[in-house]
Amino acid sequence: MAVNLSAPNPAQLYPVAGVRLGVTEAGIRKAGRKDLTVMLLEPGASVAGVFTQNRFCAAPVQICREHLARGAGVRALLINTGNANAGTGEEGRQRAVRSCVALADKLKLAPEEMLPFSTGVIMEALPLERIEAGLDGAIADAREDNWLRAAEAIMTTDTVAKAFGRQLMIDGALVSITGISKGAGMIRPNMATMLGFVATDARVSQSLMQRLATELAEASFNRVTVDGDTSTNDSFMLIASNRARHAEIESLDSANGQALKTALLEVARQLAQAIVRDGEGATKFITIEVEGGRTQAECRQVAYAIAHSPLVKTAFFASDPNLGRILAAVGYAGIADLDQGCIDLYLDQVHVAQRGGRHPDYREEEGQRVMRQSEITVRVALGRGAAADTVWTCDLSHDYVSINADYRS
Amino acid sequence: MAVNLSAPNPAQLYPVAGVRLGVTEAGIRKAGRKDLTVMLLEPGASVAGVFTQNRFCAAPVQICREHLARGAGVRALLINTGNANAGTGEEGRQRAVRSCVALADKLKLAPEEMLPFSTGVIMEALPLERIEAGLDGAIADAREDNWLRAAEAIMTTDTVAKAFGRQLMIDGALVSITGISKGAGMIRPNMATMLGFVATDARVSQSLMQRLATELAEASFNRVTVDGDTSTNDSFMLIASNRARHAEIESLDSANGQALKTALLEVARQLAQAIVRDGEGATKFITIEVEGGRTQAECRQVAYAIAHSPLVKTAFFASDPNLGRILAAVGYAGIADLDQGCIDLYLDQVHVAQRGGRHPDYREEEGQRVMRQSEITVRVALGRGAAADTVWTCDLSHDYVSINADYRS
Repeated sequence: MAVNLSAPNPAQLYPVAGVRLGVTEAGIRKAGRKDLTVMLLEPGASVAGVFTQNRFCAAPVQICREHLARGAGVRALLINTGNANAGTGEEGRQRAVRSCVALADKLKLAPEEMLPFSTGVIMEALPLERIEAGLDGAIADAREDNWLRAAEAIMTTDTVAKAFGRQLMIDGALVSITGISKGAGMIRPNMATMLGFVATDARVSQSLMQRLATELAEASFNRVTVDGDTSTNDSFMLIASNRARHAEIESLDSANGQALKTALLEVARQLAQAIVRDGEGATKFITIEVEGGRTQAECRQVAYAIAHSPLVKTAFFASDPNLGRILAAVGYAGIADLDQGCIDLYLDQVHVAQRGGRHPDYREEEGQRVMRQSEITVRVALGRGAAADTVWTCDLSHDYVSINADYRS
Repeated sequence: MAVNLSAPNPAQLYPVAGVRLGVTEAGIRKAGRKDLTVMLLEPGASVAGVFTQNRFCAAPVQICREHLARGAGVRALLINTGNANAGTGEEGRQRAVRSCVALADKLKLAPEEMLPFSTGVIMEALPLERIEAGLDGAIADAREDNWLRAAEAIMTTDTVAKAFGRQLMIDGALVSITGISKGAGMIRPNMATMLGFVATDARVSQSLMQRLATELAEASFNRVTVDGDTSTNDSFMLIASNRARHAEIESLDSANGQALKTALLEVARQLAQAIVRDGEGATKFITIEVEGGRTQAECRQVAYAIAHSPLVKTAFFASDPNLGRILAAVGYAGIADLDQGCIDLYLDQVHVAQRGGRHPDYREEEGQRVMRQSEITVRVALGRGAAADTVWTCDLSHDYVSINADYRS
């Protein structure tokens, strides 16, 4: 069902030295389904994360923030599907802490060196005993070449596992990057996607990691939306195991820093776009470019208004060039002094609207032709400045309703 | 298909002295369908309106604002369905003006005394010739007891006509109020619904009319949403024909002013709620009450976040008490300092969540029972103040997708 999204290419999922992944079936989600993942880091890894801005953030998000703030270093990540441990109050916090204690005991480490992640149903108690019982199996399974199985184990309503990798040379040393992510509904990340993990063996100063993680998320996970629902569990983690044989990167503005960031961004964007391509019920992948704004923020605001409009999304699903719905969304995006007489609209290369009205040369067959494609670019020119921004989204189909009406039942 | 919404009761649609309505089939929408309505006012009527905040407002909305600002008085309203005359640029403005000129010529009045309204497809040229050709028929049809036919003639994807009336005594004089409205998609009014017209024969000073119209809209049309899409054509008009035999109301705070406002609000709320009950694909009518906020505005913000969440709306459609989705929407509503540990959630009288976690006594069967109802009240207590607000909405069903995927094709 996913839009132009193939299963991960195993040859591209480069092992990252110092990062081992193990999965097991702990019985949290459903029978026959791997649902518990550990990511074990050798000492000395640099780690940073960005998390949901949802005020109802899940218990594991709260614990991650606290553990990262202590700066004790991170040695293991623990990820379960099938239960989000969100909307679970103080009891939920306790269970998240106890899952860290249990893993730390097994690894002879401190609980503060663990980071917990959960995804699944909200407002149900985390099945702690099953997680504890599954830890030995997951740890025993841990290998550096286990990225594909980890990508599969963190899926919920995703139909395709999401994993991408890339290699580059820095100062003559080979550097590997591999990442995994999951969607597929409650997706309008506001710092990160539901779950995304990118690891590299590059050597990066810990002091750079938070800025790097934030900038990567801003240009990837924070530019996608499926349904506008910001999850309680959004987490994006960036890990540098510091094993590659180049000099430590101490500035993101250096040539090496730029090269690494570009490669990381490529992986992060592939992971983020894969979430949209596999968005619940998605049949089309839509790029929304808004240009000619006064600020990047207002361009993004307009792009999200279009991306979240149920009327625009159903028109894409129907391949119906009912493009006035896009203009309407531009109009209610919240830019108080927007002048409709300055606005142009393009669908791929087709010039649909000019200065706020239908372009005299626009023929509906042209719009229809583009709307039938599985990949469509909407371009809106606001005509009031030089800023631009891009958002990626999908359509709204019958299957979205079916999936979300049936998810728990 | 509409949720607990019957066809209008003709006995309740009181003629309003000084207000005549006429309809005709002008061939704008489709064969066999009345699509052009005139509302003719005797001299001396007080009129005020509130209009969409969409910056891509339709040409007729622009013309209405200009004509009302001139203060020449209003003698006729001209309403067509089948074409919104929005996203039509300067040419659209010209056509709206020419429709006013044509009607004014027929009535031997000035174009500035006409107000045009359009609803239907966006970004198509208004079929001016058909409107002009239909005017004679609509004018010839005009009668004071024609409210039901007018309610039918302004429908687009509505399945049920929307018209309500009410009578009251003011100083011993009988006062009548009758109103009509239409939905049914692109509904998140931001001043008013797509089209709503309420008329009374009460005597109200013109100087009070704008405040009265604004306050009515705020407490009725501005509290409903179907899909969060603010229309380009939202218009709510309030007409007082000043024919009733009581002394002119010169203050809304007087006893008579309060009595009239209460009765008008009842009609406006019925009209607004009817739009939700007949929302595209709606199977449930949902009242969202948010209390315990610091301001009414933040309560409304939370209520709208819940009302617009596709995940919440599909859960209602499925009668699935997946109520964590409501907590997630509360969390991302945009209140930066919200403390999830203070939040309680009720479904009708069922206490679902307490201090941010599942209530210990909550049993899923109880939630399930309420979710199966066709009328459901969600109540969220924010626990941070004394303000409250209410929003009305509906669920998101397969039919919403079907209707909007097929609307033009």
